[in-house]
Amino acid sequence: MASIRDVADRAGVSIATVSRVMNRRGALSEKTIQKVQNAMKELNYQPNDLARALSGKKESKIIALLSLPLQHPFYSELITSIEECLFREGYKLLIITSFEDIMKEENCVNLVQSHMIDGLIIGGHPASERILEGSPIPIVTVEASLPEIPCVISDNNQGGIMAAKYLIAKGCRHLVHIGGDMHHESESDRRTRAFEEVCAAEHIPCTVYESTAGMLRNMDYSAVVSRMLFEHPEADGVFASSDVIAAEVIRVTGSMGIRVPDQLKVIGFDNVRMARLMNPPLTTIGQDFGELAQQTVQKILKQIHGETVEMRTVIPVTLVERQSV
Amino acid sequence: MASIRDVADRAGVSIATVSRVMNRRGALSEKTIQKVQNAMKELNYQPNDLARALSGKKESKIIALLSLPLQHPFYSELITSIEECLFREGYKLLIITSFEDIMKEENCVNLVQSHMIDGLIIGGHPASERILEGSPIPIVTVEASLPEIPCVISDNNQGGIMAAKYLIAKGCRHLVHIGGDMHHESESDRRTRAFEEVCAAEHIPCTVYESTAGMLRNMDYSAVVSRMLFEHPEADGVFASSDVIAAEVIRVTGSMGIRVPDQLKVIGFDNVRMARLMNPPLTTIGQDFGELAQQTVQKILKQIHGETVEMRTVIPVTLVERQSV
Repeated sequence: MASIRDVADRAGVSIATVSRVMNRRGALSEKTIQKVQNAMKELNYQPNDLARALSGKKESKIIALLSLPLQHPFYSELITSIEECLFREGYKLLIITSFEDIMKEENCVNLVQSHMIDGLIIGGHPASERILEGSPIPIVTVEASLPEIPCVISDNNQGGIMAAKYLIAKGCRHLVHIGGDMHHESESDRRTRAFEEVCAAEHIPCTVYESTAGMLRNMDYSAVVSRMLFEHPEADGVFASSDVIAAEVIRVTGSMGIRVPDQLKVIGFDNVRMARLMNPPLTTIGQDFGELAQQTVQKILKQIHGETVEMRTVIPVTLVERQSV
Repeated sequence: MASIRDVADRAGVSIATVSRVMNRRGALSEKTIQKVQNAMKELNYQPNDLARALSGKKESKIIALLSLPLQHPFYSELITSIEECLFREGYKLLIITSFEDIMKEENCVNLVQSHMIDGLIIGGHPASERILEGSPIPIVTVEASLPEIPCVISDNNQGGIMAAKYLIAKGCRHLVHIGGDMHHESESDRRTRAFEEVCAAEHIPCTVYESTAGMLRNMDYSAVVSRMLFEHPEADGVFASSDVIAAEVIRVTGSMGIRVPDQLKVIGFDNVRMARLMNPPLTTIGQDFGELAQQTVQKILKQIHGETVEMRTVIPVTLVERQSV
């Protein structure tokens, strides 16, 4: 039986393009669709629904989620919302947490290939992109983007602009930003770039620190926060690219007797529930977890039902004023 | 075909007892086992494995987890550990979050009855006990206990004793405890009772406040904390039955200018990752998430493999000293 690779070779397109034609994802030229469909016919290739129907398998009504470890509150809150949305639509959620764990991701590939799940949601950048190669089922990424895969993301660019303008309006003249791991080109890097651009336009000095994947895994940012405070004692404002990083800034400055917000203003990103519980309560850029989840689930379901979906959906963020700025 | 209820009626025992015989759970008298097995033979009742074998269904290698919403960090950290343990054993985790949602629990019953999952883990007290009635598959509860179901719990009694002795040793003479929702008789109530007993023995006054299910759902304990501080301005030590409640105590006292630990000492329970990030970092009674997960998974797998399991496994807790006491 012909494989998806045979179809791609015959049509002279990539495997990803064949997958997009099969799953009716995004913008495709009529010519490309025709080429792929012709190749399928010539090779007697059985696309997804048909193959499943022939093999006698029904929809499993299970969606899998490959995610970063959910002790990180951004992921646990997002996943709670996704599970609730899926439940309302009659689907169940299978969770695979992975932190750059190729073995687990391979396992996920097997799930996808075996038709044991109806769709896959990816939160965070996978270590291997093999998971995506000619996938026979719908895939959506959330707060991450991968070539040829529909995604749902927060307006990180707008969030970076809001954070910079707010700190400057509150009188900050020496800014610091602590960003995520910038090893992969990630969507959240947009927060950093937008923040830097506003600072440059306003002639406010701004230093960017990068955290590592290990810090994210252990939820321990003390090393980068201590270094930042040592190297920039003149800093009067910090934009942290997650509320967990902001919590670490508040904790370390508290232990050094630096008062937030009088001596140092701190703004976070995410608006997880623990943000309200910090001392002082954290001012932050809020992501709309309910809307991120809703749009992600709609994108998976539309693909399952053979409808076309937009490649990129951007959800607005909001400034949540509390007492750390 | 005979149902499990028919077997129970014929043998003159409860459905739960038939289920225990089928799944080889806990202590059963030889006489009971014999009665149930005779009833099964007489009615030609097909227990689990055999019924599954006859119906041609294989193990799904999926374990479902019915849990409280996982934005609560105790649940997200426990679930991360359980998922990791299951993965190492070749199983996947299906998550159903429920907050006293009967509809979702009914859905879970269907999953169980349909043999779509090989086992069920319950974290937190379900709203309906129908889920357990004559369940044809292995069930384990974690940090909760239900009649006739094997459980894995932390040593909550020891935790309550440690918290009381530690606060008293640090000089506290007016203690307050903020406990969970005591509507259901829950395992975590042992923390409260043990704390009260030590205070009584040491002749230290102690007032107990109860939080509500709504506070847990919203992770907002400000009402009970404010009331406690208003009614007991003389309090010099608080034992909070979760780190999230402790965070609220630190936040509210911070906003009132009360210094922790100088004027008020605060000890939590759980040792979730955010405990280290509080300002000041939280002293707490640590639960061993890895061991809770490991024992829970072992108990499910042993039942799947037809082995007998202990009804109750208690995991030690530890005092984690930071800077809030």
